[in-house]
Amino acid sequence: MQHVYMFGGGKADGNARMADLLGGKGANLAEMTNLGIPVPPGFTISAKLCVDYIAERRFPDSLQREIREAIARLESLTDRQFGGTDRPLLVSVRSGAKFSMPGMMDTILNLGLNPATLAALVADSGNERFAFDSYRRFIQMYGNVVYGIKGSANGDPFEHELDRLKRERRVERDIDLAATDLRALCDAFREIVQSTTGHPFPDDPWAQLEGAIEAVFRSWNSRRAIDYRRVNRLPDDLGTAVNVMVMVFGNVSEDSGTGVAFTRNPSTGEKTLFGEFLVNAQGEDVVAGIRDPEPIAKMAEWSADGSRRFEEYCRVLESHYRDMQDVEFTIERGTLYVLQTRRGKRTAKAAVRVAVDMVREGLIDPDQALSRIDPDQLNQLLHPTLDPAAQVRVIATGLPASPGAAVGRAVFDADRAEERALAGDPVILVRRETSPDDFHGMVAARGILTARGGMTSHAAVVARGMGKCCVAGAKEIIVDEAARRFEIDGMAVNEGDWLTLDGTTGRVILGQTALVEPGLGEEFEQIMRWADERRKLRVRTNADTPHDAERARRFGAEGIGLCRTEHMFFEGDRISSMREMIVAKSVDERRRALDKLLPMQREDFIGIFTAMDGYPVTVRLLDPPLHEFLPRDAGEIASVAAAIGLDPELVLKTVETLAESNPMLGHRGCRLGISYPEITEMQARAIFEAACTVAAEGVEVYPEVMVPLVSHVEELRRQTDIVRATAEQVFRDRSRRVDYVVGTMIEVPRACITADQVATVAEFFSFGTNDLTQTTFGISRDDAGRFLPLYVETGILSDDPFQTLDQCGVGALVLMAVEKGRATNPGLKIGICGEHGGDPRSVAFCHRAGLNYVSCSPFRVPIARLAAAQAVMADRSQG
Amino acid sequence: MQHVYMFGGGKADGNARMADLLGGKGANLAEMTNLGIPVPPGFTISAKLCVDYIAERRFPDSLQREIREAIARLESLTDRQFGGTDRPLLVSVRSGAKFSMPGMMDTILNLGLNPATLAALVADSGNERFAFDSYRRFIQMYGNVVYGIKGSANGDPFEHELDRLKRERRVERDIDLAATDLRALCDAFREIVQSTTGHPFPDDPWAQLEGAIEAVFRSWNSRRAIDYRRVNRLPDDLGTAVNVMVMVFGNVSEDSGTGVAFTRNPSTGEKTLFGEFLVNAQGEDVVAGIRDPEPIAKMAEWSADGSRRFEEYCRVLESHYRDMQDVEFTIERGTLYVLQTRRGKRTAKAAVRVAVDMVREGLIDPDQALSRIDPDQLNQLLHPTLDPAAQVRVIATGLPASPGAAVGRAVFDADRAEERALAGDPVILVRRETSPDDFHGMVAARGILTARGGMTSHAAVVARGMGKCCVAGAKEIIVDEAARRFEIDGMAVNEGDWLTLDGTTGRVILGQTALVEPGLGEEFEQIMRWADERRKLRVRTNADTPHDAERARRFGAEGIGLCRTEHMFFEGDRISSMREMIVAKSVDERRRALDKLLPMQREDFIGIFTAMDGYPVTVRLLDPPLHEFLPRDAGEIASVAAAIGLDPELVLKTVETLAESNPMLGHRGCRLGISYPEITEMQARAIFEAACTVAAEGVEVYPEVMVPLVSHVEELRRQTDIVRATAEQVFRDRSRRVDYVVGTMIEVPRACITADQVATVAEFFSFGTNDLTQTTFGISRDDAGRFLPLYVETGILSDDPFQTLDQCGVGALVLMAVEKGRATNPGLKIGICGEHGGDPRSVAFCHRAGLNYVSCSPFRVPIARLAAAQAVMADRSQG
Repeated sequence: MQHVYMFGGGKADGNARMADLLGGKGANLAEMTNLGIPVPPGFTISAKLCVDYIAERRFPDSLQREIREAIARLESLTDRQFGGTDRPLLVSVRSGAKFSMPGMMDTILNLGLNPATLAALVADSGNERFAFDSYRRFIQMYGNVVYGIKGSANGDPFEHELDRLKRERRVERDIDLAATDLRALCDAFREIVQSTTGHPFPDDPWAQLEGAIEAVFRSWNSRRAIDYRRVNRLPDDLGTAVNVMVMVFGNVSEDSGTGVAFTRNPSTGEKTLFGEFLVNAQGEDVVAGIRDPEPIAKMAEWSADGSRRFEEYCRVLESHYRDMQDVEFTIERGTLYVLQTRRGKRTAKAAVRVAVDMVREGLIDPDQALSRIDPDQLNQLLHPTLDPAAQVRVIATGLPASPGAAVGRAVFDADRAEERALAGDPVILVRRETSPDDFHGMVAARGILTARGGMTSHAAVVARGMGKCCVAGAKEIIVDEAARRFEIDGMAVNEGDWLTLDGTTGRVILGQTALVEPGLGEEFEQIMRWADERRKLRVRTNADTPHDAERARRFGAEGIGLCRTEHMFFEGDRISSMREMIVAKSVDERRRALDKLLPMQREDFIGIFTAMDGYPVTVRLLDPPLHEFLPRDAGEIASVAAAIGLDPELVLKTVETLAESNPMLGHRGCRLGISYPEITEMQARAIFEAACTVAAEGVEVYPEVMVPLVSHVEELRRQTDIVRATAEQVFRDRSRRVDYVVGTMIEVPRACITADQVATVAEFFSFGTNDLTQTTFGISRDDAGRFLPLYVETGILSDDPFQTLDQCGVGALVLMAVEKGRATNPGLKIGICGEHGGDPRSVAFCHRAGLNYVSCSPFRVPIARLAAAQAVMADRSQG
Repeated sequence: MQHVYMFGGGKADGNARMADLLGGKGANLAEMTNLGIPVPPGFTISAKLCVDYIAERRFPDSLQREIREAIARLESLTDRQFGGTDRPLLVSVRSGAKFSMPGMMDTILNLGLNPATLAALVADSGNERFAFDSYRRFIQMYGNVVYGIKGSANGDPFEHELDRLKRERRVERDIDLAATDLRALCDAFREIVQSTTGHPFPDDPWAQLEGAIEAVFRSWNSRRAIDYRRVNRLPDDLGTAVNVMVMVFGNVSEDSGTGVAFTRNPSTGEKTLFGEFLVNAQGEDVVAGIRDPEPIAKMAEWSADGSRRFEEYCRVLESHYRDMQDVEFTIERGTLYVLQTRRGKRTAKAAVRVAVDMVREGLIDPDQALSRIDPDQLNQLLHPTLDPAAQVRVIATGLPASPGAAVGRAVFDADRAEERALAGDPVILVRRETSPDDFHGMVAARGILTARGGMTSHAAVVARGMGKCCVAGAKEIIVDEAARRFEIDGMAVNEGDWLTLDGTTGRVILGQTALVEPGLGEEFEQIMRWADERRKLRVRTNADTPHDAERARRFGAEGIGLCRTEHMFFEGDRISSMREMIVAKSVDERRRALDKLLPMQREDFIGIFTAMDGYPVTVRLLDPPLHEFLPRDAGEIASVAAAIGLDPELVLKTVETLAESNPMLGHRGCRLGISYPEITEMQARAIFEAACTVAAEGVEVYPEVMVPLVSHVEELRRQTDIVRATAEQVFRDRSRRVDYVVGTMIEVPRACITADQVATVAEFFSFGTNDLTQTTFGISRDDAGRFLPLYVETGILSDDPFQTLDQCGVGALVLMAVEKGRATNPGLKIGICGEHGGDPRSVAFCHRAGLNYVSCSPFRVPIARLAAAQAVMADRSQG
């Protein structure tokens, strides 16, 4: 059983296909070595070992021998000695899981240093300052990672000590500290470790190495790693590999440096190297955003050869991997080393452009192009940006780290961001700089603003990955996290104040700014065409107004899957007629009120049918319990009663009579239409009169009448009878027929279980998976806030079932309904109109379930189109 | 295709096995004819024709010929002529469906009379008064049945006319009217028909016959027939046969008479003829309760020969049918005719005694005995009777028409009885006399009181069939239905006043009287022993107190299937500690409050475990949402806060925070235990400490800990972990172990769908079919009152799914859960603890589904035992 895999000297034990074992980083290091790219030699300890270690809390006996052999090989490749006092071999220890988890796992540099090897490093490098700086970094990182000495209420004790020293020396930057200062700092850091742990800092390099490896393995189950996996839906049982690599130093001299670059622009997708470098610095300085780097385009000015060779390696790597790469390098005394390559994270805009460009460049085919775009990420392209016409008050400008726009209230720590967002507040997370500990706050926020850090800082990388607006490194702002505010030019922005971020330009704007809809580019249209050519599912939209219907058509909707009629009753003075209808004491009174509603409802349908010319429109009959239309408190009741000329006592009595213990399970849906058939009749009349009207004007209209909340076929039969009788009457009166169908929403378990019976009457099914999820779980979505977050948090549920369809439970009912429904009605048309219709994994499920269409909110239509195409390709790759 | 089946002259076309075609009455008339019993000749028109007629609204062409042939046969058998002016043949026309529907369908007597045949009847009978009386009855019945001229707001116009005439003649009874009076009445009745229908009363006997047949067929779908079938769960598609029989007259002379008798006492089951007769009267007079009949025991005094022969026929019929019979007879001028026999309706007490006696007499075997008892009817035996020690104020005494006791508020019409009962009021329906139109009110009432009518009056027969207490013929009371009150000795009892009825003694008592538990007889124990020998399902009880547990044991419960722990928290000052627990601001505070609850809860379990010594006890962990334990309005909040020394603001805030939109689907069940593991821990500790305590005293204890509202296996796993860890801790502390299991309530659809997963953790399943029905249908039982009655009323649902398990929907989920659960855990114990566990049809379903036990309220335990045995026999008869 091999646990250790070497790379270096032009060949490697592993390769890129071994990411399960070596992690993404390790596999790519091996691959690069095999490609002849200059990677510092090293070895990877397998992720399999991590899994075993977590289970058994010990290492196998053979490991120590394997590691000693690997180190010996590094010693021979570098002509250095681990723990040697002449040419000491220093190594970095980094985690590397199968999936890229930026900043999530821990890194230790300069491992192998101790007072003895430090002296040798001083001699060897001829740079005392560099050597002490390396040692103090090592102690700090080791203290952080291995002993958990980190920021707490009192701050990071190492940083605290560094700040104290800088104040004492009256310098601003680390780099301005002298070698003697750093030497003193090393002593102070060793003392911090001693006093915190009760043990001296370890000097034995082998002990250092073992401690580091264990710490990396343990970090797999750190809170932030678990959080990241949860949000990104990564499995928990993979483990992480450990990469041990010979140190090369970008901070050893002025002809040394370090940098990170994307082979294409990760914001726009433009085909040009995009990145940053720092002279005389170590790689962590770039990623952490502590120093401000130079753009990569300027690198040739500093090192023409390094720049040329780096560009060449980038070309090799991109065409080898056939994808945009994110590459790290270090130049040590003029010699270029590539330290890492990985798939570059990108914005949706970049993802679309890179995918289309690469097809045009012949690197990939359209299927691959489609599969590389995360449908959820398209949200970025589809959601509004700042209204350019809006009067805005720009208070600061930072880096346009992740495009898009966000409006929200300023919040200054991650916990609070999560808390406020849960309470329904839109949140802008403001931090001096973000760290992996802020991850849950970033997830909760609409946008992220940092005072420090560059385009590849933690905040920027993570925000782009989430498709979330981010302005990074807005240096003018002075963040006081403890006081929950930031200052700029003497003005304070406090927690709760409104901010608008423009991630596309980097502007920070005070107040709430109007947003406008996005324009979609040519590459986006190309991707959508490819998707449309492949997908089998039709994509409709949920829309209640002609405006929404038109927008959805522009996004590619092929009809309306859910037109809710109740929203129409809230508008303007319609609510008065609705209330008259509700308090009516007899069928006649009710009919009179309904007669007032009829023309309004008819007008609504005329608008919607016209907007959807040529496509079907599914109209759901009145669904909510009637009390939702009534005022609640006594004062409101009195004023409402007066306004519509009703007896307040009557209104009050009606409100009391209609109150329900569990409105979600109460007198609503088709139960209303059965109690008051005249409501169904009025709605059917409005639908068919509108259809006849627009048909007379040449509009292609195809109404689908949907009966909600059916649990028994008889309910549907009786409502269908009313709808059909009304249709026939309208057609006779208008001397015109239109094609239509009558079907039902499937939203309670019983409808699924008896779908064979229901389908004998229904011409279509539309899964209302919101309510179906509520009834299948027995969970009221309105009340779930008290326990559902905890369920997802602690892994009782892997996902919020209201966001992603619960395939195991709700999905099983969907499959049952499809099978049973088609068994008695082979021509049954089946769709879904719950919010899951716009969730990519749920769309994939709908495809596999054999549905005819999904219906989702207008903004999610393109997401559903892409997800539907990807589902077809997933079929093929499994077939 | 034969539509008409003759009987008479010693032989018949049909027999008792042809009830599908001939209805129960027709089949028995044929059978009796074949047995040589003197039945007046006649013929039966098949129920099949009724079904066709209802569908097509016309008769087949061949029918008229068949009827003419049949009438010709009757003419030849009787030497009379239909429409003849010499010896006119008169017939009765009666409905007769497959299942006995007493009083539900309509009857017409004396058909064939018209002015011409009337004259012949006068001559033929030599009794003018009789002839005119027969004619006026015919016109009235024909007017009622065929033309629908009946009681309305203004009363029955025929009765009105009769009353008018009696007042005019200053007589009390019909019989005191002279022949001339009756002749005038006939003219008046003909005039009523003329003026109501616009047509003269038909004189053509053939037209009369056709009209009568059609009317009987139509009456199959009358409101009262449909109601009866619904309540008695009879199919709607059978149709009714029509029996046309030669008239014999009990009212033609003083040596004529009529009567009805049961072959055994239908109240007690005693083996003695039980019935009544009237001299010089027609059968309808007995059934309608208009005249007061004599007990059958006195019949020999009037007609020794008739009495002897009737007793003989009763013996023949009972041993032929091997069941207690309800036999009608008429003596015409000394000649006995048997007009009908049918299975005698009986009280539960009689059913049990008759069944056991007949086994002892060798007439039937124990299986047959069991199958003859309606489990639902056992309720009568099990529910309380009047406390003999109670001080009661008897205001009247009537006939003990149906045993048992009932306490309720007086209501004077059926609609109002239904309305008040739906609103939750216990109702005593008080009527002068009942008619089939009162049926729905009788269903709704706890008990029935009538001022008129005997032991075989409509009220008495129907009440006994329903197992409902009835006092009939309480002559002292003067009912004023319009004024909604009755008077007795000048005292008025108004609508809403409390009454107690003692159906066993016939006492009418003013006010609410205490009731006591029934003593069960030796025959009952025998039936239960036979049932226990046969059944496969175990029967447990739902009980939360030692008192309930003990009572249930006496009824034969074999353990507790549902012990709800929350009820315990409402008692006395426990609610204070519970409230402290709920408003606790930290885990520590909550633990302190729980520590106060622990000893109380432990005491509860000690009592229950002791009461159930030797049997398992399933304890459900805390289930309801916490807000149910808190006060609701501001005043109550203040006083509660003061009482338990809490800040009213805090209590108010907690009440507001805990408020839920849909509590049924909210933060309850295991969701509480997951949010507050310390609650689960306290409950588990109380259970296991109690178990160890009683085990130390020699009690055989077997706790089953039940986690409620599980929708995902992970919920159960986490709660189970807490329970098991706590158990181990208690066992260590007490140095004693008790066997126990941990399982789950299956009460949301997802638990059924994923039962294979849930069963990997659960050691038992218990179906909570109340909640499962709510979630499967998406119906809140608390809110269903606004539509569910309409659903059952109009046949959308055949039954209230909260009373009888919905096999098609909820049942399918139960079957799925059983199959999936046993697939991964073959030893899984499965029961049901919803209210359906005491519903016989649901018990039969549970048996077929392969459940191990049902659990129901203590009073329903014997019902479940019998139903479980019947389910086994049903298996056999199908196997």
